[in-house]
Amino acid sequence: MTFAATILTLYPEMFPGPLGTSLAGKALTRGDWSCDTVNPRDFASDKHRTVDDTPAGGGAGMVLKADVMAAALDSVADQRPILAMTPRGKPITQARIREIADGPGVTLICGRFEGFDERLFEARPQIEQVSLADIVLSGGETAAIAILDACIRLLPGVMGAASSGHEESFEDGLLEYPQYTRPQEWEGRTIPEVLRSGDHAKIAAWRKSKSEETTRLRRPDLWERYESVRDQSASGARRKNKEPDQ
Amino acid sequence: MTFAATILTLYPEMFPGPLGTSLAGKALTRGDWSCDTVNPRDFASDKHRTVDDTPAGGGAGMVLKADVMAAALDSVADQRPILAMTPRGKPITQARIREIADGPGVTLICGRFEGFDERLFEARPQIEQVSLADIVLSGGETAAIAILDACIRLLPGVMGAASSGHEESFEDGLLEYPQYTRPQEWEGRTIPEVLRSGDHAKIAAWRKSKSEETTRLRRPDLWERYESVRDQSASGARRKNKEPDQ
Repeated sequence: MTFAATILTLYPEMFPGPLGTSLAGKALTRGDWSCDTVNPRDFASDKHRTVDDTPAGGGAGMVLKADVMAAALDSVADQRPILAMTPRGKPITQARIREIADGPGVTLICGRFEGFDERLFEARPQIEQVSLADIVLSGGETAAIAILDACIRLLPGVMGAASSGHEESFEDGLLEYPQYTRPQEWEGRTIPEVLRSGDHAKIAAWRKSKSEETTRLRRPDLWERYESVRDQSASGARRKNKEPDQ
Repeated sequence: MTFAATILTLYPEMFPGPLGTSLAGKALTRGDWSCDTVNPRDFASDKHRTVDDTPAGGGAGMVLKADVMAAALDSVADQRPILAMTPRGKPITQARIREIADGPGVTLICGRFEGFDERLFEARPQIEQVSLADIVLSGGETAAIAILDACIRLLPGVMGAASSGHEESFEDGLLEYPQYTRPQEWEGRTIPEVLRSGDHAKIAAWRKSKSEETTRLRRPDLWERYESVRDQSASGARRKNKEPDQ
């Protein structure tokens, strides 16, 4: 099955862009995914093909018109999830990426300028407003490329044996453990002894503790969530062990 | 002054990619920024030009060799900040983007596979490990493109009068307020009355309250930080008003 990506963008020439090379490019050639673009400009109703207008109430920049964007979206509307790229959205997560990659495809709406007329989201509540990061881009296109990249690598056959896709950052609520490879010694630094022990249980325990340590230090937000989930399941396990069936 | 971007990547053909079009593309043509790539493969010492090897201690995937990556980095090392794209890093922020955009440029190191030999970061502590989002990409390239996009739009002259760059999401710790534009009525939905009042103070107050409401609902993490900063500065102001100078 082909994962169908449709991108609403004023800059269709940006796609597939970097996704036309490397892992994603090979998958595109194989037909694992497809990449179509829709230009909202083709849905403008005036002779100047206007897609934006000045903000109501004043202010700098231009706002994408709800009528034009909705017409463009309605032309491709189907059962696929619809994501609008906006810094006002909910942060994208690896869990949501995995859900999308498991489905038939995705429609991505790219903003420009000062964003979208809010009525687009009121009138088309199926649109998920999604933020890639707490930074402001020149438009949604570079965010859409990153999100597609994350989806495509999870499609069946794309990563192959190269990576499990499950033992990596965010999949268990932790950042990944540090990695090492040859040479054994470099600039006076050696690979940690435990990794050369051949003792799989000891290696797994060391990696887990390093994952926890890195997450605690670098991502207190993830660590807090991880601890509360861990404590809940621990107390659930205790209850299971202690409480007799009624 | 030209903002100099150097990208360490095994896929130099991905750059400038989407940054060669639109706003960033025009700025590149004008010389507002430059885009060079360095391929770590050119710094491999064996005849197969090996850049990666299997993880010490076992596991799927391949790890980028510290010796090869360090040699590639050392070839471009200067006073610019060095960011390595990795999901194990600290989340990038708009404040850091602004600092980087205010400087001479940036060197971005793109990972692939299972990431970097950790000794690279131990031996080159000037490298900032940076995460774009809580998602896993096929490599650092699409993250580097998004981060460069965010920097380039802030360079002098790039946005022009199109946007202030200051009255937008994250700049004051809040998400931006909703925007509206013509038509006045669309699908039975009208632009909020206040935005047509011409009363600038009332409009500013409405926008502020909408910014706060959106942030509270969609980004409890940002809201918590915003509230604590606001409360601190309020109590600071109270102290100033009440306490006489000694």
